[in-house]
Amino acid sequence: MVMEKNMNDTFLLSPSLVDERMDDLIADLQVLIRQPSVSALNQGLEECALLLAKMMNTAGIRTELLYLSKPKNLKSKDNNDLEKHLTIPPIVFGEVKSKSNPLGKTILFYNHYDVQPIDPIEKWDDDPFSGKVDGNVIFGRGSSDDKGELITRIKAVEFFLKQTGDVPCNIKFLIEGEEEIGSPNLNKYLLEYIDKFHCDLIIWESGYIDNKGRAIISLGQKGILNVELNVQGPSHDVHSSLAVAIENPAWKLIEILTSLYDNNGKILIDGWYDDIEHLTEGELQQIEKEYFDEDSFKKEYGIRQFINNASGSDIKKRLALEPTCNITGFCSGYTNQGVKTIIPSSATAKLDFRLVPFMDPKSQFNKLVSFLRAKGHSEDELKITFWSGEPAYRTPLNNEYVNIVIDGAKKIFNDVILNISSPGSGPMYIFNKLLSVDSICIGSTILPNKMHSPNEFTNIDLLNKATKCFIEIIKEISKIVC
Amino acid sequence: MVMEKNMNDTFLLSPSLVDERMDDLIADLQVLIRQPSVSALNQGLEECALLLAKMMNTAGIRTELLYLSKPKNLKSKDNNDLEKHLTIPPIVFGEVKSKSNPLGKTILFYNHYDVQPIDPIEKWDDDPFSGKVDGNVIFGRGSSDDKGELITRIKAVEFFLKQTGDVPCNIKFLIEGEEEIGSPNLNKYLLEYIDKFHCDLIIWESGYIDNKGRAIISLGQKGILNVELNVQGPSHDVHSSLAVAIENPAWKLIEILTSLYDNNGKILIDGWYDDIEHLTEGELQQIEKEYFDEDSFKKEYGIRQFINNASGSDIKKRLALEPTCNITGFCSGYTNQGVKTIIPSSATAKLDFRLVPFMDPKSQFNKLVSFLRAKGHSEDELKITFWSGEPAYRTPLNNEYVNIVIDGAKKIFNDVILNISSPGSGPMYIFNKLLSVDSICIGSTILPNKMHSPNEFTNIDLLNKATKCFIEIIKEISKIVC
Repeated sequence: MVMEKNMNDTFLLSPSLVDERMDDLIADLQVLIRQPSVSALNQGLEECALLLAKMMNTAGIRTELLYLSKPKNLKSKDNNDLEKHLTIPPIVFGEVKSKSNPLGKTILFYNHYDVQPIDPIEKWDDDPFSGKVDGNVIFGRGSSDDKGELITRIKAVEFFLKQTGDVPCNIKFLIEGEEEIGSPNLNKYLLEYIDKFHCDLIIWESGYIDNKGRAIISLGQKGILNVELNVQGPSHDVHSSLAVAIENPAWKLIEILTSLYDNNGKILIDGWYDDIEHLTEGELQQIEKEYFDEDSFKKEYGIRQFINNASGSDIKKRLALEPTCNITGFCSGYTNQGVKTIIPSSATAKLDFRLVPFMDPKSQFNKLVSFLRAKGHSEDELKITFWSGEPAYRTPLNNEYVNIVIDGAKKIFNDVILNISSPGSGPMYIFNKLLSVDSICIGSTILPNKMHSPNEFTNIDLLNKATKCFIEIIKEISKIVC
Repeated sequence: MVMEKNMNDTFLLSPSLVDERMDDLIADLQVLIRQPSVSALNQGLEECALLLAKMMNTAGIRTELLYLSKPKNLKSKDNNDLEKHLTIPPIVFGEVKSKSNPLGKTILFYNHYDVQPIDPIEKWDDDPFSGKVDGNVIFGRGSSDDKGELITRIKAVEFFLKQTGDVPCNIKFLIEGEEEIGSPNLNKYLLEYIDKFHCDLIIWESGYIDNKGRAIISLGQKGILNVELNVQGPSHDVHSSLAVAIENPAWKLIEILTSLYDNNGKILIDGWYDDIEHLTEGELQQIEKEYFDEDSFKKEYGIRQFINNASGSDIKKRLALEPTCNITGFCSGYTNQGVKTIIPSSATAKLDFRLVPFMDPKSQFNKLVSFLRAKGHSEDELKITFWSGEPAYRTPLNNEYVNIVIDGAKKIFNDVILNISSPGSGPMYIFNKLLSVDSICIGSTILPNKMHSPNEFTNIDLLNKATKCFIEIIKEISKIVC
C-alpha cells in the first residue's frame, strides 16, 4: 500500500501531549476502580462492563457488549443452568478501523475488567474501591490488575483519535469479565464472535517494569488448573472428646495434601511432568540473559530465601518453566477467636496448579483424580472439584512482532528485557488455537503493586509511560507495509 | 447426730411432684438459653450470671456473684492486663444450709453458665438462642451443655425448699463462666474463696443417659491442652504465580502438623506418653463391663468405622484412656466462594490434646514446643500459643459416695452403668487438688443432643428424670450419719 499524507503527520505527533491529559486518565481509572467487579463473587460485572463501554465510546472507540447465545441444549426447564448462563458477564468489544490505513495491520488489546476478591478486608488501609490518589500512586482493587493497564491502552488510542481523527493502524479491544476466575467462557466467546476478533498481534493485558525502569517484554504465560478438595467427616461438628474414635476430616485432608507435594517444589502425582515441552537452546539462553533482582524480590515479599534455597539461573528457570502445586485456601472447623473443642464435620482446600506447555488442564486433573482414587480415597470420602483451567502458551522468540514491540518500547523505557514466559497465567493458549495469533505482554506494573493483595496500587508515572509506549508501538506497527 | 422429725417427713416426699412443675423448669431454662453467654467471645457472661443469680435467689438459694480480687502485682498503668482482669466472668455461688441437719454432709454442684460458640451459624435450623420447644425437646446453644443440666439441680433443691422450707443436707452451687475455654481462672477462684467451697462430694456438671435409658455414672475426666500454631509466610498475600519461589505457609503448617500425629491415633511428639498412669486391675475390669453401642454411635455421627477400625473393648479403652491430638480449626488464605489465586500470608491451626492422668498440660506443652523447635521451626517461622490446659482426674472406684449415688439413680433410671472416665474434659483435677474432694458425674444428656454442634437440644423427659434423680441422691446422702 501507499502511505498517505496524514499518516506521515501521525508519526510526527509527540506522545508528550499525553502529559497534558493525565488528569483525565486518572479520573477515568478512578471511575473504573470505584465500580467493584469481582468475578469470583459475580459482583458488579455487568455494571462495570457498561461503564467501560460508555467510557470507550466517549473516547471515540466504537464499543459494544457481546453476550453468549443461549446454548441450544439448554431447555427452559433447566432453571439452574439457565440462571448460570444468564450471569456470564459480557465481553466489551471495541474497534477502530483506520481510515488512512485500512489494509494495515490489526492490533487486538486483550484486557479484563474483573478483579480479584478483596479478602482479607481488614488488611486494607482504605476502602478497596476508593481509587484514592496519594502523590504518584492510585490505590484500589484493580488499580494495577487490570484496570490500570487497560486505561493506558484506551488513552493511547484516544490520543490518535483526538489528534488526527483517525488511528494509523486497525485497533481492537477484547475486554473480558472472567479472567480472574480462569476465563471459563472465553473459549465460547471466541468461537461465537470469531469474525470480530481476527487480528495480527495481541497485546496482552499486562506487563512488568523492573526496578531499573526497564520494560519486561514477556512472550508466554503458564497455564493453570484450579481445583477444590473436600473431605467429609462426621455428619455434624462433634465434641472433640470423641477424637479417639471419630476420624477428623482436617487430618484426613492433610494426609491427602501431603501425598500431592513434597513442600520443596516437587509434585508427587504420578505422571504429572510427563507432557512438558523441552526448550530450544535459544530459549534456554534467553532465560540466562534475563535480569532478576533476588534481593529486591525477597525484600518486597518479606522472605529470607526461595524454595529449596534456589538462586541465580535456577530461580529464573523456575519462574519461567516450573509447574506449581499451591494451596490458595484451607478451611476447617472453628477459626474465630479463642477455643472451640470440636471435630469439624468437613475440611476444604483450594489448590491452584500452574502448568507449562504442553500440559493439558483436564488431563492433569484426571491424573490428580486417578492418583487420589488409587490411594483409596473414595468419592464418599473425598470430593474433587474442577473449578477451571487453561493451558500454557509461549509466543516463539522469532515471532515477527517481537522486535517491533521492542523498538517501540525502547523509545519510552530505559531499556527492555525479553522474557520467554511470565510465571502467571492467562488464556493466551486459546487465542492462539482459535485465532492463530501470537501475544506479547507489555505494561505498567511493578512488583510492589500488590496485585491480588490488600492495598493494591498503581504508579501514575508508569501509567504515563505505558500510554506513551503504546502510542510508539502503534506507530511502529503502522509502518509495516502489507 | 439425731435425725429430726421433719427430716423423716422429707424422705416420704414423692419426686412425682416434680411433674407438676415442669412448665416452670422449661420456662426458666428458656430464660437461660435466651441469654447468649459465649466464653470464647466474652459475650453476655456477666449478664447471664446476674440472671442466674436472680433465678436461684427466687428459688430460695442464697446466691452471690464472686469476683476475683485484682492481683497485687497489677499496677494501674498495666491497662491491658487490668482490662483483661476486669473481663473475667464471675462465679455464681449458691448455698443452702440444712436447718434440720446442719452437721450433715455437704454436696457441691459444679456447673457452668457459659456455652460454646454458635459457628457454623448457617447450619442451625433456628436462632441458636431461641430456646424453642418442640414436643419433648428444647433447642438452643446451652440447652444441654450446661444450662439444661444446671436447671435440674436448681429445681431439685427448690423442690425440698418449696415442700419443707429446708433441705435435708447442706447444698452448695459453684457455677463458673469459663468452662468452655478450659476454666483458666477457676484455680484462682478456688484459692481466693476456698472457705466457701468446702464440701464432701462434688456432683459434676453433666452425665449421659444411654440409649436404653440407663444413667452412666462417670468417675473421671480427661485433661486438655489447647494450643494454636501459626506460620508466617510472605509479608502479604501474594499472587500465586510466585509459588515456584515463595514457600506457602499452609504447606509449611501441613508439614508441621504431619510431624505431630500419624492420623491413626498415635501422637508422634517425643515423650508424649511418658507420664501416663497405669490402671489397676479393677479399673480395667470395670472398662470391660461398660456398655457401648457401637452401631448407634456410628449412626449418630454418620461414620462408617472408628479410627484404626477399632471395636469392642479396644474402643471403650480408647474413650476412657487414650490421649488425642485433634485439629479443631485450620484457616489459611481464601475460603470464600470460587477461586482466588494467592499464596496466603499466614496459616493457623487450632489443636486440642486430650490428656490422661498424670499428664501435666504445661509440661506436655513444653514437650510440643521442644519437639517443633528441635525440628528447626524457629520462633520467626512458627508461633506456638498456649491457650489453656487442665490435667485429667479420676475418682477412685472405692470412693464412699459412688454406691450412694448409684442407689439414688437406680430409683429413677432403668439401671446404671459405671464408667471410670468420660472422654471429655473439665477441671475435676483442680477441685481434688485444692479441696481434697472427689467428683461424680451424673446428668440428663444423651449422645444425640449435639453438644458443641449446631441444633443442640435437650430432652424434657430426661430433665424431669434427672431432677427426680438429684432429689433421690440428696435424700440418700442425707441418710449418712456424721
